[in-house]
Amino acid sequence: MFQKPKNIIIAGCGRLGSSLAGKLSQLGYHVIIIDKSEEAFRKLPDTFSGYQVVGDAANTEFLERIDIKNCFLFIATTNSDNANCLISQIAKNIYKVEKVYARLDDAEKQILIEDSEVEAIYPSLLSIEKFEKLSGITFKEDF
Amino acid sequence: MFQKPKNIIIAGCGRLGSSLAGKLSQLGYHVIIIDKSEEAFRKLPDTFSGYQVVGDAANTEFLERIDIKNCFLFIATTNSDNANCLISQIAKNIYKVEKVYARLDDAEKQILIEDSEVEAIYPSLLSIEKFEKLSGITFKEDF
Repeated sequence: MFQKPKNIIIAGCGRLGSSLAGKLSQLGYHVIIIDKSEEAFRKLPDTFSGYQVVGDAANTEFLERIDIKNCFLFIATTNSDNANCLISQIAKNIYKVEKVYARLDDAEKQILIEDSEVEAIYPSLLSIEKFEKLSGITFKEDF
Repeated sequence: MFQKPKNIIIAGCGRLGSSLAGKLSQLGYHVIIIDKSEEAFRKLPDTFSGYQVVGDAANTEFLERIDIKNCFLFIATTNSDNANCLISQIAKNIYKVEKVYARLDDAEKQILIEDSEVEAIYPSLLSIEKFEKLSGITFKEDF
Protein backbone atom coordinates (compact mmCIF):
# COMPACT_ATOMS: atom_id res chain seq x y z
CA MET A 1 0.00 0.00 0.00
CA PHE A 2 1.24 3.46 -0.84
CA GLN A 3 2.20 5.38 2.26
CA LYS A 4 1.92 9.13 2.29
CA PRO A 5 5.19 10.87 3.10
CA LYS A 6 5.16 11.85 6.74
CA ASN A 7 8.46 13.44 7.70
CA ILE A 8 8.58 17.19 8.25
CA ILE A 9 11.47 19.35 9.47
CA ILE A 10 10.88 22.79 10.95
CA ALA A 11 13.89 25.05 11.49
CA GLY A 12 13.31 27.66 14.17
CA CYS A 13 11.04 27.29 17.17
CA GLY A 14 9.52 30.75 17.38
CA ARG A 15 5.82 31.53 17.50
CA LEU A 16 5.12 30.33 13.97
CA GLY A 17 7.46 27.33 14.02
CA SER A 18 6.25 26.04 17.37
CA SER A 19 2.62 26.50 16.43
CA LEU A 20 3.01 24.68 13.10
CA ALA A 21 4.96 21.93 14.87
CA GLY A 22 2.06 21.34 17.26
CA LYS A 23 -0.59 21.35 14.55
CA LEU A 24 1.35 19.16 12.13
CA SER A 25 2.23 16.57 14.75
CA GLN A 26 -1.43 16.47 15.79
CA LEU A 27 -2.29 15.57 12.21
CA GLY A 28 0.00 12.57 12.43
CA TYR A 29 3.07 13.92 10.66
CA HIS A 30 6.48 13.01 12.05
CA VAL A 31 7.86 16.40 12.95
CA ILE A 32 11.42 17.28 13.89
CA ILE A 33 11.80 20.84 15.11
CA ILE A 34 15.29 22.30 15.38
CA ASP A 35 16.58 25.42 17.05
CA LYS A 36 19.98 26.71 18.11
CA SER A 37 18.65 27.34 21.58
CA GLU A 38 17.17 24.68 23.83
CA GLU A 39 15.09 27.34 25.58
CA ALA A 40 13.13 27.99 22.41
CA PHE A 41 11.42 24.62 22.78
CA ARG A 42 9.48 25.95 25.77
CA LYS A 43 7.17 27.56 23.22
CA LEU A 44 6.07 24.16 21.90
CA PRO A 45 2.42 23.43 22.70
CA ASP A 46 1.50 20.40 24.82
CA THR A 47 0.02 18.83 21.70
CA PHE A 48 3.48 18.51 20.10
CA SER A 49 4.51 14.87 19.86
CA GLY A 50 7.58 15.06 17.63
CA TYR A 51 11.31 15.46 18.21
CA GLN A 52 13.08 18.61 19.30
CA VAL A 53 16.75 18.80 18.39
CA VAL A 54 19.27 21.53 19.23
CA GLY A 55 21.39 22.33 16.19
CA ASP A 56 22.24 24.63 13.31
CA ALA A 57 19.91 24.17 10.36
CA ALA A 58 22.48 25.68 8.01
CA ASN A 59 24.88 22.82 8.75
CA THR A 60 24.50 20.06 6.15
CA GLU A 61 26.10 17.36 8.32
CA PHE A 62 23.56 18.12 10.99
CA LEU A 63 20.70 18.08 8.48
CA GLU A 64 21.80 14.68 7.19
CA ARG A 65 22.01 13.33 10.72
CA ILE A 66 18.34 14.22 11.25
CA ASP A 67 17.54 12.52 7.95
CA ILE A 68 16.58 15.48 5.79
CA LYS A 69 16.77 13.16 2.78
CA ASN A 70 13.59 11.47 3.92
CA CYS A 71 11.59 14.58 4.66
CA PHE A 72 8.98 15.78 2.17
CA LEU A 73 8.27 19.18 3.72
CA PHE A 74 10.67 21.69 5.23
CA ILE A 75 9.81 25.01 6.88
CA ALA A 76 12.41 27.70 7.65
CA THR A 77 11.01 29.89 10.42
CA THR A 78 14.04 31.13 12.35
CA ASN A 79 14.01 34.77 13.43
CA SER A 80 16.50 35.70 10.70
CA ASP A 81 15.36 36.31 7.12
CA ASN A 82 18.86 35.67 5.85
CA ALA A 83 19.04 32.35 7.65
CA ASN A 84 15.60 31.37 6.36
CA CYS A 85 16.66 32.12 2.77
CA LEU A 86 19.86 30.14 3.13
CA ILE A 87 18.37 27.17 4.96
CA SER A 88 15.39 26.85 2.64
CA GLN A 89 17.66 26.87 -0.39
CA ILE A 90 19.83 24.17 1.14
CA ALA A 91 16.71 22.05 1.69
CA LYS A 92 15.46 22.64 -1.84
CA ASN A 93 18.62 22.67 -3.91
CA ILE A 94 20.88 20.21 -2.12
CA TYR A 95 18.33 17.80 -0.65
CA LYS A 96 15.50 18.23 -3.18
CA VAL A 97 12.87 18.40 -0.46
CA GLU A 98 9.50 18.37 -2.21
CA LYS A 99 7.83 21.30 -0.42
CA VAL A 100 9.93 24.06 1.10
CA TYR A 101 8.61 27.20 2.81
CA ALA A 102 10.47 30.19 4.24
CA ARG A 103 9.05 32.81 6.57
CA LEU A 104 10.31 36.26 5.58
CA ASP A 105 9.71 39.46 7.52
CA ASP A 106 11.16 41.67 4.86
CA ALA A 107 9.44 41.30 1.50
CA GLU A 108 12.55 42.66 -0.19
CA LYS A 109 14.37 39.47 0.72
CA GLN A 110 12.22 37.69 -1.82
CA ILE A 111 14.89 38.40 -4.39
CA LEU A 112 17.12 35.91 -2.59
CA ILE A 113 14.75 33.03 -3.23
CA GLU A 114 12.82 34.06 -6.31
CA ASP A 115 14.67 31.79 -8.71
CA SER A 116 14.17 28.80 -6.47
CA GLU A 117 11.07 26.76 -5.85
CA VAL A 118 10.95 27.86 -2.23
CA GLU A 119 7.61 29.45 -1.32
CA ALA A 120 7.66 32.45 0.99
CA ILE A 121 5.27 33.37 3.79
CA TYR A 122 5.29 37.08 4.71
CA PRO A 123 3.58 37.79 8.04
CA SER A 124 3.89 41.57 7.58
CA LEU A 125 2.37 41.63 4.11
CA LEU A 126 -0.42 39.32 5.23
CA SER A 127 -1.12 41.71 8.10
CA ILE A 128 -1.23 44.68 5.74
CA GLU A 129 -3.67 42.85 3.47
CA LYS A 130 -5.81 42.06 6.51
CA PHE A 131 -5.74 45.73 7.52
CA GLU A 132 -6.93 46.66 4.02
CA LYS A 133 -9.84 44.23 4.28
CA LEU A 134 -10.86 45.36 7.77
CA SER A 135 -10.51 49.09 7.20
CA GLY A 136 -11.70 49.35 3.62
CA ILE A 137 -8.59 51.41 2.79
CA THR A 138 -6.85 50.04 -0.28
CA PHE A 139 -3.19 50.48 -1.08
CA LYS A 140 -2.52 50.61 -4.75
CA GLU A 141 0.71 48.65 -4.80
CA ASP A 142 0.63 44.99 -5.56
CA PHE A 143 2.23 42.73 -3.01
CA MET B 1 -18.10 70.35 1.04
CA PHE B 2 -17.87 67.24 3.17
CA GLN B 3 -14.29 66.41 4.02
CA LYS B 4 -13.34 62.82 4.67
CA PRO B 5 -11.69 62.30 8.04
CA LYS B 6 -7.96 62.22 7.56
CA ASN B 7 -6.22 61.87 10.92
CA ILE B 8 -4.65 58.53 11.81
CA ILE B 9 -2.57 57.59 14.84
CA ILE B 10 -0.29 54.57 14.82
CA ALA B 11 1.20 53.41 18.13
CA GLY B 12 4.42 51.45 17.70
CA CYS B 13 6.92 51.89 14.91
CA GLY B 14 7.89 48.26 14.23
CA ARG B 15 7.79 46.57 10.86
CA LEU B 16 4.00 46.66 10.54
CA GLY B 17 3.50 50.11 12.06
CA SER B 18 6.20 51.78 9.98
CA SER B 19 5.02 50.12 6.80
CA LEU B 20 1.38 51.14 7.35
CA ALA B 21 2.55 54.67 8.24
CA GLY B 22 4.33 54.97 4.89
CA LYS B 23 1.44 53.60 2.87
CA LEU B 24 -1.26 55.62 4.65
CA SER B 25 0.64 58.89 4.39
CA GLN B 26 1.19 58.22 0.68
CA LEU B 27 -2.59 57.98 0.31
CA GLY B 28 -2.94 61.48 1.77
CA TYR B 29 -3.88 60.63 5.33
CA HIS B 30 -2.42 62.74 8.12
CA VAL B 31 -0.47 60.15 10.07
CA ILE B 32 1.08 60.53 13.50
CA ILE B 33 3.26 57.61 14.48
CA ILE B 34 4.32 57.26 18.09
CA ASP B 35 6.93 55.12 19.76
CA LYS B 36 8.67 55.10 23.12
CA SER B 37 12.03 54.97 21.36
CA GLU B 38 13.28 57.57 18.89
CA GLU B 39 15.43 54.90 17.25
CA ALA B 40 12.34 53.01 16.10
CA PHE B 41 11.58 55.79 13.59
CA ARG B 42 14.57 54.69 11.51
CA LYS B 43 12.32 51.97 10.14
CA LEU B 44 10.00 54.53 8.53
CA PRO B 45 10.16 54.39 4.73
CA ASP B 46 11.24 57.46 2.75
CA THR B 47 7.66 57.80 1.55
CA PHE B 48 6.43 58.66 5.07
CA SER B 49 5.35 62.29 5.24
CA GLY B 50 3.61 62.44 8.63
CA TYR B 51 4.68 63.23 12.17
CA GLN B 52 6.80 61.03 14.41
CA VAL B 53 6.42 61.63 18.12
CA VAL B 54 8.26 59.98 21.02
CA GLY B 55 5.81 59.12 23.77
CA ASP B 56 3.80 56.54 25.66
CA ALA B 57 0.58 55.62 23.87
CA ALA B 58 -0.95 54.36 27.11
CA ASN B 59 -0.75 57.89 28.60
CA THR B 60 -4.04 59.73 28.06
CA GLU B 61 -2.52 63.20 28.56
CA PHE B 62 -0.05 62.43 25.81
CA LEU B 63 -2.80 61.09 23.55
CA GLU B 64 -4.83 64.27 24.02
CA ARG B 65 -1.81 66.41 23.26
CA ILE B 66 -1.46 64.69 19.89
CA ASP B 67 -5.19 65.29 19.31
CA ILE B 68 -6.55 61.76 19.49
CA LYS B 69 -10.05 63.26 19.68
CA ASN B 70 -9.78 64.24 16.03
CA CYS B 71 -8.45 60.95 14.71
CA PHE B 72 -10.80 58.53 12.97
CA LEU B 73 -8.47 55.55 12.80
CA PHE B 74 -6.06 54.20 15.41
CA ILE B 75 -3.70 51.24 15.07
CA ALA B 76 -1.91 49.62 18.04
CA THR B 77 1.18 47.86 16.71
CA THR B 78 3.71 47.98 19.55
CA ASN B 79 5.74 44.85 20.19
CA SER B 80 3.68 44.01 23.27
CA ASP B 81 0.30 42.30 23.00
CA ASN B 82 -0.69 43.55 26.43
CA ALA B 83 0.15 47.12 25.47
CA ASN B 84 -1.76 46.78 22.20
CA CYS B 85 -4.85 45.54 24.03
CA LEU B 86 -4.68 48.35 26.57
CA ILE B 87 -3.93 51.15 24.09
CA SER B 88 -6.57 50.08 21.60
CA GLN B 89 -9.21 49.97 24.33
CA ILE B 90 -8.23 53.45 25.49
CA ALA B 91 -8.65 54.69 21.91
CA LYS B 92 -11.99 52.97 21.50
CA ASN B 93 -13.61 53.33 24.90
CA ILE B 94 -12.30 56.68 26.15
CA TYR B 95 -11.85 58.57 22.88
CA LYS B 96 -14.49 56.80 20.76
CA VAL B 97 -12.14 56.54 17.78
CA GLU B 98 -14.21 55.23 14.88
CA LYS B 99 -11.90 52.46 13.65
CA VAL B 100 -9.44 50.81 16.01
CA TYR B 101 -7.10 47.91 15.20
CA ALA B 102 -4.70 45.98 17.40
CA ARG B 103 -1.92 43.69 16.25
CA LEU B 104 -1.77 40.59 18.45
CA ASP B 105 0.89 37.90 18.28
CA ASP B 106 -0.86 35.60 20.67
CA ALA B 107 -4.37 34.68 19.56
CA GLU B 108 -5.24 33.87 23.16
CA LYS B 109 -5.04 37.56 23.97
CA GLN B 110 -8.21 38.03 21.98
CA ILE B 111 -10.16 37.50 25.17
CA LEU B 112 -8.86 40.87 26.38
CA ILE B 113 -10.56 42.76 23.56
CA GLU B 114 -13.43 40.53 22.52
CA ASP B 115 -16.13 42.59 24.20
CA SER B 116 -14.88 45.79 22.60
CA GLU B 117 -15.20 46.99 19.03
CA VAL B 118 -11.46 46.76 18.51
CA GLU B 119 -10.54 44.56 15.54
CA ALA B 120 -7.50 42.34 15.85
CA ILE B 121 -4.85 41.47 13.28
CA TYR B 122 -2.96 38.23 14.01
CA PRO B 123 0.23 37.88 11.93
CA SER B 124 0.86 34.33 13.22
CA LEU B 125 -2.61 33.04 12.40
CA LEU B 126 -2.49 34.70 8.99
CA SER B 127 0.83 32.95 8.36
CA ILE B 128 -0.62 29.60 9.39
CA GLU B 129 -3.58 30.09 7.04
CA LYS B 130 -1.13 30.96 4.27
CA PHE B 131 0.85 27.80 5.00
CA GLU B 132 -2.37 25.79 4.74
CA LYS B 133 -3.13 27.32 1.34
CA LEU B 134 0.37 26.81 -0.01
CA SER B 135 0.92 23.30 1.31
CA GLY B 136 -2.58 21.88 0.90
CA ILE B 137 -2.42 20.62 4.50
CA THR B 138 -5.53 21.66 6.41
CA PHE B 139 -5.74 22.05 10.14
CA LYS B 140 -9.15 21.25 11.49
CA GLU B 141 -9.36 23.93 14.14
CA ASP B 142 -11.13 27.15 13.40
CA PHE B 143 -9.11 30.27 13.89
